[in-house]
Amino acid sequence: MPVVLTDNSPGLADVPGLRVGAGAGDIRRKDPARLDTALVVADRDVAAAGVFTTNDVKAAPVRLCQSVLAATAGRVRGIVANSGNANACTGEQGLRDAEATARLAAEAAGCPGAPFLVCSTGRIGEPMPMDRLGKGVAEAGARLAAAADEGNRAAWAILTSDTRPKSVTARFEWEGRTFVVAGIAKGAGMIEPNMATMLAFVATDLDAAPATLKAALLRANAASFNAVSVDGDMSTNDTVILLATGASGVSLEGAPAGLSALFAEALGKVCDALAEKIVGDGEKITKVVSVEVAGARTDADAEAVARAIGNSLLVKSSWYGEDPNWGRLADAAGYAKVGLDESRLDIAYDDVPAVAQGRPLPENKPRWKEVVRRRRFSVRLDLNLGPGRYRLLTADLSEAYVNFNKSE
Amino acid sequence: MPVVLTDNSPGLADVPGLRVGAGAGDIRRKDPARLDTALVVADRDVAAAGVFTTNDVKAAPVRLCQSVLAATAGRVRGIVANSGNANACTGEQGLRDAEATARLAAEAAGCPGAPFLVCSTGRIGEPMPMDRLGKGVAEAGARLAAAADEGNRAAWAILTSDTRPKSVTARFEWEGRTFVVAGIAKGAGMIEPNMATMLAFVATDLDAAPATLKAALLRANAASFNAVSVDGDMSTNDTVILLATGASGVSLEGAPAGLSALFAEALGKVCDALAEKIVGDGEKITKVVSVEVAGARTDADAEAVARAIGNSLLVKSSWYGEDPNWGRLADAAGYAKVGLDESRLDIAYDDVPAVAQGRPLPENKPRWKEVVRRRRFSVRLDLNLGPGRYRLLTADLSEAYVNFNKSE
Repeated sequence: MPVVLTDNSPGLADVPGLRVGAGAGDIRRKDPARLDTALVVADRDVAAAGVFTTNDVKAAPVRLCQSVLAATAGRVRGIVANSGNANACTGEQGLRDAEATARLAAEAAGCPGAPFLVCSTGRIGEPMPMDRLGKGVAEAGARLAAAADEGNRAAWAILTSDTRPKSVTARFEWEGRTFVVAGIAKGAGMIEPNMATMLAFVATDLDAAPATLKAALLRANAASFNAVSVDGDMSTNDTVILLATGASGVSLEGAPAGLSALFAEALGKVCDALAEKIVGDGEKITKVVSVEVAGARTDADAEAVARAIGNSLLVKSSWYGEDPNWGRLADAAGYAKVGLDESRLDIAYDDVPAVAQGRPLPENKPRWKEVVRRRRFSVRLDLNLGPGRYRLLTADLSEAYVNFNKSE
Repeated sequence: MPVVLTDNSPGLADVPGLRVGAGAGDIRRKDPARLDTALVVADRDVAAAGVFTTNDVKAAPVRLCQSVLAATAGRVRGIVANSGNANACTGEQGLRDAEATARLAAEAAGCPGAPFLVCSTGRIGEPMPMDRLGKGVAEAGARLAAAADEGNRAAWAILTSDTRPKSVTARFEWEGRTFVVAGIAKGAGMIEPNMATMLAFVATDLDAAPATLKAALLRANAASFNAVSVDGDMSTNDTVILLATGASGVSLEGAPAGLSALFAEALGKVCDALAEKIVGDGEKITKVVSVEVAGARTDADAEAVARAIGNSLLVKSSWYGEDPNWGRLADAAGYAKVGLDESRLDIAYDDVPAVAQGRPLPENKPRWKEVVRRRRFSVRLDLNLGPGRYRLLTADLSEAYVNFNKSE
């Protein structure tokens, strides 16, 4: 029985043992009706794991999450998240505000003092408007339910410049019972290595020790959220959290290998799907491009080549122009400095070879020009030097991106 | 007696011991009148030094220059350069074409068999049209002269998407005699670390051993051509060449320290001025920004922070929009991962502080908004962690850049 994905699902509301709520605090001071606060609450303190931005400048909520997970040995009651203000570069006051937000969330959820993780995304460098955030948290608390509608509202509440909510649910059967892994995410800009201004919340109704969850999350994250790039800018707030409610009564601890494998597959598919949605909804992109590098000496070398290509302004501009300029690919691959040998290099667009062993194949140009007209395509490089490989999901760069980002 | 700079000078034609010529071979097959070939010829084989792209994918002319300099122990008769075709990613045929170009240059200069350096810039991945290049070389050879007009024409001939020629001459006196260091350059796109699709040819009428020249060039290059970035893309063809004609009859070998210091100063100023012209004429830029990082633990840390900022799409877009978004500066500085401590960070626009010890100073915003409206300004970060510093000269990112580069 395979893992079955449901796209655009109610997200976390699909996970037994969780209640979800969303509120509108008008954190942006622009639109009192816009949802900007989400609350995710488990029936009890449950196992949690997180991965966070590796930026030296970590927003206050990131630092709070790390200290909460350390202090509770990875057991929390839930997550409170807001959009509109990142609470980043806000100094000691920012940390106090994040702590206060966790307390407000616990009170709104009817479990004062319970440990909550806090995630924020939005403007950098401005104090969190705590009165407005408090209003959103209170509203989200009052609406807490295991209801599809609230799951959808929560997925909306965490968005910033995203154009659509991002949610997915995976289900799989094991010995006649169905288990769930579901998640929501937001992305859009500042999307690069080690995630993005990227928030993703994933949960399962399996139980697990926090260390088991952490290992599973690190594995799934490496091939999904860590392998996407929109603009090469890594945020101060990147956070992925995984909760295990245990509501199924079944634990991954001591579970048969088959169940653990199915869980890993489901978690991987949820993370992949959310990461793909993040790139596909990147700020003002017009193309999603899978950069697939093979034949490097090591996986790390392959990753360096893929990131050089995926972050090259010249390459990204040419994708936007539907111009299959493979010279720019070769140039970017070369400055990754992994000891590339031009005379062994193969380049293809999807399955159409453009360069073979360093020799251009201009006769194929009409076919590869077709490929780059698609909304989604792959560029494939084989360095023919070893077994290393890496895949980066990235996007083009449009004039509209620059226009969109020319002011805050 | 200080070093005196003459901007927009006749460039290499100012250097005693050199003749210069330019020709139009119509390498682009677009405009038979457009100058695209330059020849620089010394009266005899002279000391030469070069620094080249560190890209794994080195264009044929770069590989040829490196082997010529090795084979001749750094003594060449001159340089032949063309625009319109980079002779990059052209395999073995490309190398044979570069060798043939060197032979054609020697013949056109009336010194068959003499060693020539070859530099090309333009399209990647297409065979060099040798008949057209040959026509340009022959014309340049026929026009060889120590004449200002030919110096200007040579500065035009090497341009690609540049909008104006780039030349500068430095003169200084020593014991009643005047010496010269002069150069020309081209830039525009693919401008990043370790130079660019950047060509620069600099010469002096002093004499020197090739090793002395190389050391002087490496020093001057580090703070100039290596410290500029337009779009973060390093080319396959980057080349800086320094020639010492010795026509003054004075050598740097065994020279008084005062003369060597004046030469180093003049060379540094010529390289700085050419590098600055390259950024100022970057493809579709509207702002030149000096990113000045101080207080890092090491110079390398400071450089990493400066490059993260200078290559951030979000930062560059905000400069274009005249939006002094210091949060994006802090974010980019943080993902350089040099152990930045947010609570010690100072940020200023020119002399207007925006952040002091991690604390935003919104009261100064009207003043720093003034700063970013200028065509040229600096962003200054002090990490307050150590003595390391670095300055990167970079530019904004405009919608027009994306439009300009969306096709070849």
